[in-house]
Amino acid sequence: MSRLVALLTDYGYTDTYVAQVKAVLLRLCPTCEVLDLTHGVPPQQVRSGAYLLASATPYLPDGTVVIAVVDPGVGTERRAVAVQGVRHTYFAPDNGLLCLALRDDPPQKAVVLNNPRYHLPAVSATFHGRDLFASCAAHLVNGVPLEQLGTAIPLDTLQQLSAIEPEFTPDAVHCHPLHMDHFGNVVFNLHYAAFRAWLGDEAAPVHLRLAGAGGQLVGLPLVRTFGEVSWGEPLAYWGSNCYLEVAVNGGSAARQLTITDDTVLTLVRGKFIGTLE
Amino acid sequence: MSRLVALLTDYGYTDTYVAQVKAVLLRLCPTCEVLDLTHGVPPQQVRSGAYLLASATPYLPDGTVVIAVVDPGVGTERRAVAVQGVRHTYFAPDNGLLCLALRDDPPQKAVVLNNPRYHLPAVSATFHGRDLFASCAAHLVNGVPLEQLGTAIPLDTLQQLSAIEPEFTPDAVHCHPLHMDHFGNVVFNLHYAAFRAWLGDEAAPVHLRLAGAGGQLVGLPLVRTFGEVSWGEPLAYWGSNCYLEVAVNGGSAARQLTITDDTVLTLVRGKFIGTLE
Amino acid sequence: MSRLVALLTDYGYTDTYVAQVKAVLLRLCPTCEVLDLTHGVPPQQVRSGAYLLASATPYLPDGTVVIAVVDPGVGTERRAVAVQGVRHTYFAPDNGLLCLALRDDPPQKAVVLNNPRYHLPAVSATFHGRDLFASCAAHLVNGVPLEQLGTAIPLDTLQQLSAIEPEFTPDAVHCHPLHMDHFGNVVFNLHYAAFRAWLGDEAAPVHLRLAGAGGQLVGLPLVRTFGEVSWGEPLAYWGSNCYLEVAVNGGSAARQLTITDDTVLTLVRGKFIGTLE
Repeated sequence: MSRLVALLTDYGYTDTYVAQVKAVLLRLCPTCEVLDLTHGVPPQQVRSGAYLLASATPYLPDGTVVIAVVDPGVGTERRAVAVQGVRHTYFAPDNGLLCLALRDDPPQKAVVLNNPRYHLPAVSATFHGRDLFASCAAHLVNGVPLEQLGTAIPLDTLQQLSAIEPEFTPDAVHCHPLHMDHFGNVVFNLHYAAFRAWLGDEAAPVHLRLAGAGGQLVGLPLVRTFGEVSWGEPLAYWGSNCYLEVAVNGGSAARQLTITDDTVLTLVRGKFIGTLE
Repeated sequence: MSRLVALLTDYGYTDTYVAQVKAVLLRLCPTCEVLDLTHGVPPQQVRSGAYLLASATPYLPDGTVVIAVVDPGVGTERRAVAVQGVRHTYFAPDNGLLCLALRDDPPQKAVVLNNPRYHLPAVSATFHGRDLFASCAAHLVNGVPLEQLGTAIPLDTLQQLSAIEPEFTPDAVHCHPLHMDHFGNVVFNLHYAAFRAWLGDEAAPVHLRLAGAGGQLVGLPLVRTFGEVSWGEPLAYWGSNCYLEVAVNGGSAARQLTITDDTVLTLVRGKFIGTLE
Repeated sequence: MSRLVALLTDYGYTDTYVAQVKAVLLRLCPTCEVLDLTHGVPPQQVRSGAYLLASATPYLPDGTVVIAVVDPGVGTERRAVAVQGVRHTYFAPDNGLLCLALRDDPPQKAVVLNNPRYHLPAVSATFHGRDLFASCAAHLVNGVPLEQLGTAIPLDTLQQLSAIEPEFTPDAVHCHPLHMDHFGNVVFNLHYAAFRAWLGDEAAPVHLRLAGAGGQLVGLPLVRTFGEVSWGEPLAYWGSNCYLEVAVNGGSAARQLTITDDTVLTLVRGKFIGTLE
């Protein structure tokens, strides 16, 4: 049986950590096919990792086995888990990394990976991606049922991320950065569906205001394509994964607008904001 | 049918854009095999992308389906096209990105990708690599004829890049940077075949002179291997893709010779330049 | 026959050098399966490359064909070799790059790749990874015996790396950096097995002292997991590949402790150092 295994980590590209994970997968399960989601999650940034994972999983073929490792607590008491969703099965540290992906793929059951029979013979204190997650995932692809990998845990004990939602008031939404991408575009934590629910039926006009660390306020037009603003000008748009994004046409919003983790993007009723459609 | 799909983009490695493209390919066409050409084209640098694409396509197995996306105009009026060459089939924005690759693989027919039946159900304004190019390419691999993907267009309407050729005079050739590589070596826009044609039968001696932005002139020896000059010294050589390259032995030519897009490399008849053989 | 070909280079991710190597492999041997070990070896750093190769090869399935290219001497007189170990077969420049991997996989025979029949028709002076190593490796996977690829050479003529071992005295071990990883953790050249042999039966206490370029001395606790020291504090531990590593919890040891190639980590008998188990 061929089976797709998708990997997301913060291991980077300058070491062989990713290759060691893949080598364990291929040795235990020669027929599996590996797909890299990304290994460029900023080191130990679980929040960014959670967004990146959720940006890719909806496009994967049904039945993909996903291994996601951004794991500042490796070797401590944090749980290592496997979670079966409606579409995919996920292996990850239980630190909130899965929380956004599981919104689109509701969890059906979960286990803590405490059956040493399916780990590598020697489990290091610092590399569970290889010694535990890859090994358990390979056994699952080989046909071992999820229940054998460890003790079942209640779904509502799976860790969530704090401050993952914007703050909604009747008149305004306050959003925070989720991820800064390769082009310098910044993804904020407002999903189009949540925005529509807040907006309600009236489709009232809305305007956008970015408050940077330096205290300056920048007004942003909400447009469909970069070409709708001049070269070098900032803009907001509903990104290709349905979150609100801020960019600079031909430049880097992260740098030019000095957006940091503390930057707040506020939407206020009062001016038309446009739609995703 | 297994079929190779080769990808070149400026999407980088720190997001899941590439993975979303691959996920669409694998979901629509589970038997396709994906090869990364590179995803490290400098953001929105079509010229560098055109060189990189042409550096790899001659080595691909015949019949490869190539998807190339460096697309500053995504969502505007630029056309999205598929071009069938003698050897491969290409999907790309019609912005000149294909022009160097098509020199080695002359186009036979081309269509604009305007048949929505082969796009993803919702096409975003900013991510045609996933919603349009990957989807259309997957359908082609699945057996849909090129002609079904959209309206045929005349081959001579395909976009070219400006200033892609050196300036030739009887006595000199003025070359411009095409691409700076990972080692700091700089590829100039002079192909060995064009050089030989300019040189003619006489094989007269030629010398090389680099004029940087700061006005300084640097003479360069043309050699076969880096070891022919001392550690830290600059050199020119015919690179492994038959373009003229400038390097510093054990260093970075881009940095040490402060080469920018405006740097001009001039070849003047008068001194022996060596040959590729 | 499907066969795994694993690649390690310093070619980086912003060019198509890696893709050209893979394209040659796939064209000559369509059934081979390629695994990237890493292409992020620091440019021309053979020592770092040797460590990275040895970190991954023990996890590969038996019979993998490994191509490793970190090759500052390409085009000069350095030999290009193929080495058959007990488990894998290796293609590399003969510059010491293989020396750590071959410790775990003792060489059985070796040849110099001087049979042009198995090279690409035109071998460039600067890209043996494509024109020579990939081509020879593809022919091997296709069934050509190692002996046909070139002239046999004595195993004891394979190049070693200088200063690859720590300096052992009865009272102290002086270690040097082998590799700095993506997280800023620094791997030193002391393997746990060599440490145990030096330590002997007494398991005497040991303490660790880092002497940086600036002359400052830093004492380091040896622990099992990062969580055993406070946020921002330095630590030492036996890494997941059994070498001694230095890190800063939540930070970059390379940067915060200003570790360079000249940094010396000294272990002195006198205090308990802990064990890998």
